[in-house]
Amino acid sequence: MGKFLTSRSENYSQWYNELVVKADLAETSAVRGCMVIKPYGYAIWEKMQRQLDNMFKETGHVNAYFPLLIPKSFLSKEAEHVEGFAKECAVVTHHRLMNDPNGKGVVVDPEARLEEELIIRPTSETIIWNTYKNWISSYRDLPILCNQWANVMRWEMRTRLFLRTAEFLWQEGHTAHATREEAEAEAKKMLEVYAEFAEKYMAVPVVKGVKSANERFAGALDTYTIEAMMQDGKALQAGTSHFLGQNFAKAFEVQFVNKENQLEYVWATSWGVSTRLMGALIMTHSDDNGLVLPPCLAPTQVVIVPIYKKAEELEAISAKVNEIVAKLKAKGISVKFDDNDQKKPGWKFAEYELKGVPVRLAIGNRDLENNSVEVARRDTLTKEQMSLDGIDEAIVKLLDDIQANIFNKAKEYRDGMITKVDTYDEFKRVLDEKGGFVYAHWDGTTETEEKIKEETKATIRCIPIGNPLEDGVCIYSGKPSKQRVLFARSY
Amino acid sequence: MGKFLTSRSENYSQWYNELVVKADLAETSAVRGCMVIKPYGYAIWEKMQRQLDNMFKETGHVNAYFPLLIPKSFLSKEAEHVEGFAKECAVVTHHRLMNDPNGKGVVVDPEARLEEELIIRPTSETIIWNTYKNWISSYRDLPILCNQWANVMRWEMRTRLFLRTAEFLWQEGHTAHATREEAEAEAKKMLEVYAEFAEKYMAVPVVKGVKSANERFAGALDTYTIEAMMQDGKALQAGTSHFLGQNFAKAFEVQFVNKENQLEYVWATSWGVSTRLMGALIMTHSDDNGLVLPPCLAPTQVVIVPIYKKAEELEAISAKVNEIVAKLKAKGISVKFDDNDQKKPGWKFAEYELKGVPVRLAIGNRDLENNSVEVARRDTLTKEQMSLDGIDEAIVKLLDDIQANIFNKAKEYRDGMITKVDTYDEFKRVLDEKGGFVYAHWDGTTETEEKIKEETKATIRCIPIGNPLEDGVCIYSGKPSKQRVLFARSY
Repeated sequence: MGKFLTSRSENYSQWYNELVVKADLAETSAVRGCMVIKPYGYAIWEKMQRQLDNMFKETGHVNAYFPLLIPKSFLSKEAEHVEGFAKECAVVTHHRLMNDPNGKGVVVDPEARLEEELIIRPTSETIIWNTYKNWISSYRDLPILCNQWANVMRWEMRTRLFLRTAEFLWQEGHTAHATREEAEAEAKKMLEVYAEFAEKYMAVPVVKGVKSANERFAGALDTYTIEAMMQDGKALQAGTSHFLGQNFAKAFEVQFVNKENQLEYVWATSWGVSTRLMGALIMTHSDDNGLVLPPCLAPTQVVIVPIYKKAEELEAISAKVNEIVAKLKAKGISVKFDDNDQKKPGWKFAEYELKGVPVRLAIGNRDLENNSVEVARRDTLTKEQMSLDGIDEAIVKLLDDIQANIFNKAKEYRDGMITKVDTYDEFKRVLDEKGGFVYAHWDGTTETEEKIKEETKATIRCIPIGNPLEDGVCIYSGKPSKQRVLFARSY
Repeated sequence: MGKFLTSRSENYSQWYNELVVKADLAETSAVRGCMVIKPYGYAIWEKMQRQLDNMFKETGHVNAYFPLLIPKSFLSKEAEHVEGFAKECAVVTHHRLMNDPNGKGVVVDPEARLEEELIIRPTSETIIWNTYKNWISSYRDLPILCNQWANVMRWEMRTRLFLRTAEFLWQEGHTAHATREEAEAEAKKMLEVYAEFAEKYMAVPVVKGVKSANERFAGALDTYTIEAMMQDGKALQAGTSHFLGQNFAKAFEVQFVNKENQLEYVWATSWGVSTRLMGALIMTHSDDNGLVLPPCLAPTQVVIVPIYKKAEELEAISAKVNEIVAKLKAKGISVKFDDNDQKKPGWKFAEYELKGVPVRLAIGNRDLENNSVEVARRDTLTKEQMSLDGIDEAIVKLLDDIQANIFNKAKEYRDGMITKVDTYDEFKRVLDEKGGFVYAHWDGTTETEEKIKEETKATIRCIPIGNPLEDGVCIYSGKPSKQRVLFARSY
């Protein structure tokens, strides 16, 4: 069925683009850089949201909602932040259209110019810290542990569905703390939450690490990241958690009276993951036949296809299938019985492979007689006959197996894509010939980092958490280095 | 504890504004007309969302996501729609800021002007029908039953928290059908879903009806509405469902091949409810002591306050409370044990009254000895002692009672606020002295409707579904009328 898609080996990028559209996940829209998330893609995103939201709440966070628009002047208040975010953004300048006096259609009403332009939020630190100013006066008001699910906008020049779009959906946590230690612990805790979500639910293995100064979020003192490895050897930053120090509190004059009755600036974190995770999910597991979804996030976990010639056969099969469906639903499994008469089984098999449904049951007359069913796994594309007795428990186990298997497969691949190198020649050779993470000594300077990026397009993805110290020399400058860091070309 | 709030009788509008802020539901933001929805308010909205989303899915709908921005030219494609929505909206004209060459801060980069201005969606019919064009070619592609949860923006001149804000959160369903009958049935079905949600979950009684031509959604052939009655005698439109005919299909050239192999325009509906429902919820049930929440939507359904003097006492109470909490949670009840040592019981009682927690348990040493607990209802402000044996089942029943009671109370009030009148003088007198719905004959013309509105500020809220036909004369024009309609002043 691979004929539907360009193969990964032929053109990985084209494979991805085709897959996103053909599996009905998303498509481009009439608005440059903005996507339409189609129902099937959105159903996966909803499952991600639900799980993440549960994890945020279990760690003590609450949801809130802050304005879409940010006064232009707010962006200038934090010096680094404005450099990072004020440049490419959607600017609202007017609040009214009028009928075109010279013809058809509507034009901007020149008299409805805003006194101060408003920016569509690229991220919400500024508007949120301007709000927190009124919420915080004493240590008793702290911590504030808010999250918001929202759309944001960054005017990207080159966009790709899910991976980089002008508008995207995300969550952004913004927390306020009385001490540096507490804020740092929060930023690290949320990195752990993201890593657990990626590995346990998305089945995407990630490296947890800290960004170099150059790759930090604009306005952060430390940016923690989870980095995933795609099948084409490029890294993908899947989530970040920032320790913001007192930068935003100072920019927005947010002080509190501490237990010692002294005025102090508030400590902050922010952390976010976005619909970009959809890109990571798709690229980590899928194959030339289509999507491969982890059972934990698949909108439909099991599809049942009847194999029959005559209407009476379908009737007998349906009666049995309804029993199976009821049993599976009782186990909390989402199951679809596709008895559409207009499509042939072969077409359905291909369709559900393309859509990444983890388990497919095919059942015909012969199976009814034998009290069995053909069970196909999407991850391995293997089939086996199973008895209908205890099929519900067998499927529960199978879904667990698939979840574990695709994680292990991805982890094995990822582990094999971390290459230790000691010279710049080797570094460049590995990047060009193999790809993946290159684990190499670096002198710790932004200058070296930028030169390497310029010459090879590889960036420092992170310094892994718990990275062993090791004396060495920088592959680029030959200067002394205390540890290796992970470089990669990336999305 | 009423001292915290202006009373309703003193100044209803001020009571509402104070309540929204003091109960931590929402507040104004630095951006004109845009609100911050605070965690407690958002928790209620989340419960509404969850329930509505379940009801949409049970009726066969799926979620999707469409772009925030709409090309200006799209708005002009549907003639009535542009009149209704193109006028007061946020217009994006540029995509970049730059450092101000003359000083500090940032300014709009004049070179980053967009070729075509983009509008922040006031509603999404245009961008969605432009998308559906590519999804629909045959009757086999129909129906499409999509919903989206999103933020929208309408540049309102006078705003009030939840009731009318420039940015608000909502859901908008957009469906496409092969026949007129099916689309009309869908629009009516969603009205029923909204009415069921309002009455069963929000405990807000509503009148289901159809709008007069003048009050229709811009671009609709019929607008169905649910209308609620607030405690100040003003009506509030709580949700609308539109039968759009083929207007948007024609505007965006969306045709399909029907079963008879003929090209035909697609039939459409759209339907939405918004954070305005929060306003309806607050104003329907709350009193001078604060919020009154229906148990179905209360983030915390039961709060437990320990009454003690010494630390040992608290220890003994806590041990018992932990048992109660476990029992209540096992019944699916959300419960909070407030053992904060910094606040006195009286302060806590007032606080949870203000926040509308449906049930409060107070438990002290004496109660432990008697194996009982003091149970206070927020709706009636009454207290009683209850045995701790079977307390979980008693609370389940109590929550059901409260849910039913506040609905019945609101319904009784609302029913009493429908006044039949036969003359224009009586009409004006009822509006001024009593308020509420005025049920009167109308000649069916927009002209009369607008004159009445001009003179009395009352509009036709709806023609109720199943309204009895009855010969009469229009209260304004004296012309013949076939039925009475519901007028009211409204939010």
